Amino acid sequence: MVFGATMARAARNGATTLQMSNPVLVEVLRGTLVESHHRGALAVVDADGATVLALGDVVQPVYPRSAVKPLQALPLIEGGAADRFGFGDEELALACASHGGEPAHVAVAQRMLARAGLDVGALECGTHWPTHQSSAQALARSGAAPSALHNNCSGKHAGFLCVACAAGVDHRGYVGASHVVQREVKAAIESLAGVGLSEDRCGIDGCAIPTYAVPLSALAHAFARFGTGRGMAPERAKAAARLRGAMAAQPYYVAGTGRFCTEIMTAFGARVLVKTGAEGVFCGALPEQGLGIALKCDDGGKRAAEVTMAAAIGRFLPLRDDGRAALERFVRPTLRNWNGTEVGALRPTMELLR
Amino acid sequence: MVFGATMARAARNGATTLQMSNPVLVEVLRGTLVESHHRGALAVVDADGATVLALGDVVQPVYPRSAVKPLQALPLIEGGAADRFGFGDEELALACASHGGEPAHVAVAQRMLARAGLDVGALECGTHWPTHQSSAQALARSGAAPSALHNNCSGKHAGFLCVACAAGVDHRGYVGASHVVQREVKAAIESLAGVGLSEDRCGIDGCAIPTYAVPLSALAHAFARFGTGRGMAPERAKAAARLRGAMAAQPYYVAGTGRFCTEIMTAFGARVLVKTGAEGVFCGALPEQGLGIALKCDDGGKRAAEVTMAAAIGRFLPLRDDGRAALERFVRPTLRNWNGTEVGALRPTMELLR
Repeated sequence: MVFGATMARAARNGATTLQMSNPVLVEVLRGTLVESHHRGALAVVDADGATVLALGDVVQPVYPRSAVKPLQALPLIEGGAADRFGFGDEELALACASHGGEPAHVAVAQRMLARAGLDVGALECGTHWPTHQSSAQALARSGAAPSALHNNCSGKHAGFLCVACAAGVDHRGYVGASHVVQREVKAAIESLAGVGLSEDRCGIDGCAIPTYAVPLSALAHAFARFGTGRGMAPERAKAAARLRGAMAAQPYYVAGTGRFCTEIMTAFGARVLVKTGAEGVFCGALPEQGLGIALKCDDGGKRAAEVTMAAAIGRFLPLRDDGRAALERFVRPTLRNWNGTEVGALRPTMELLR
Repeated sequence: MVFGATMARAARNGATTLQMSNPVLVEVLRGTLVESHHRGALAVVDADGATVLALGDVVQPVYPRSAVKPLQALPLIEGGAADRFGFGDEELALACASHGGEPAHVAVAQRMLARAGLDVGALECGTHWPTHQSSAQALARSGAAPSALHNNCSGKHAGFLCVACAAGVDHRGYVGASHVVQREVKAAIESLAGVGLSEDRCGIDGCAIPTYAVPLSALAHAFARFGTGRGMAPERAKAAARLRGAMAAQPYYVAGTGRFCTEIMTAFGARVLVKTGAEGVFCGALPEQGLGIALKCDDGGKRAAEVTMAAAIGRFLPLRDDGRAALERFVRPTLRNWNGTEVGALRPTMELLR
């Protein structure tokens, strides 16, 4: 089921082929004009796999990147590591996080490693400055340099290391596709998405683990299952519920100050689960409605992925006036210049709203 | 002349209208797949206004943003301010710059203001942290906060203030559309682009000045004129040559360390003039070929605008092997993860290369 898509000529691999053109989902307004626009695809699917909405091409496999971190955290609970190391909501939320490298995020990642008898040296995710600007500035002011703990994926990686330790296997090389940790992570995604993940459609993520391409329709199905516990074994349903509960209870640890995932889950609690991924991917679930959501902005744009997710939530989540008001600033974010003057806005197109 | 464009349904202003779909110009590769792609439009025009290449819709007006800073600097020379205040290549290059807020950029902006008897308090561009990361970190380490001098547009604004001072008019409110400075800037762009700029197609830029929408074909024509001095009065041709010379002599002051504009103009000297703008706009000139270039990435993506500009230079500028090698890393930039492993690349499509 693909709506709103047209065929466009495009050149790929040196040959001119027919390519789907996804619909414009988000427009960027400035002054009197639409200054830029973003195309993309969106799938909303229920736990039985029935498509509720499909905009654009939801069949072509896309790299889910960090948007599947909640699914990647299932082995942390199922393998017994979370219980063995006494993890509560903060640790489990951070295992599902793309965090801003704020001091509290770093502290929880360090604590997770310490529980497994490890330290920052075991992390294989690489190092970058905190994406949370004032945390980066404070770090610079202190004269310190960032470590792998500041990497936005350090909580997920700490979780991976705990999985290896609890299983009694050598954790070194845990980012490799052939390591037991990545094989378990892959199997968890496959079982929820209902599709096989292939080395033929695989890339290396920013944090060095494999990212396997999955159709948006299958990703949305996976999140419908994850959000409801339906269509999976009882143990897995319990693990999913525990992760959902942790993200809802500690949304700050899923992203950070002012971030979309944190703000949305703070506003809507357990009614909405959302997780961002690089290159314009976003996944989520509306547990009460039994729906999973997966989307990708063609150009990888984060701003458009956020507006699309906010619009999708607004379309399928019954809201009272206060909820609608809370959502509005994410559906139609304002653009301001360096003097603070309002100069434009983003808005979803009718394609997305109708 | 519009090639490679197809019609796609899109919703705008609440009504479903027919909209041009620009061709895919840049692909983002990761592992075995194209992960994301960018559509856009590109115009290459000569000084007589003849279109040499048009990809996508080059007729629809787009906001040029900072890409027209070299044109906006013409009144600084023509009004006598540059001579009166003794500006050399550094000052003139900075007047055309979107700089990184590095200490040397800040120092030149401050010097320009001091020559006119002004200081940072006169700037109306607003304040942001340096975009050059290690300069921002050094500023944070020093315990200082950024000022309007760190704004990427501070050189342009210092130039505007000098225009006002040289003309003997009150500089306050110089960012407003009705101030004589902005009216002169607007007239300079109109005369080079050969089109009228309208309040009906106007927005406020990030630095608070008006940005008037111009078709890409007219922008490319303006840059062909600016790059050659053809089709304009002798005094204006002289002013354009002086600005071109300053940008070629001091490309560091046009952008900064590691930046596309600086690197390209360092590599190719006076043979290539390039200037980036926000929201995926890029303008440039190949003076020896008598060509102007203007492009916009539909989604506002900077990375795709850079690849498109690099590919356009490679298509029209005759290069020996060393020149081609210098350009290659901008035509097909490598993507690395946080461990420094190569995980992908950007590349221009055949649409752009053929």
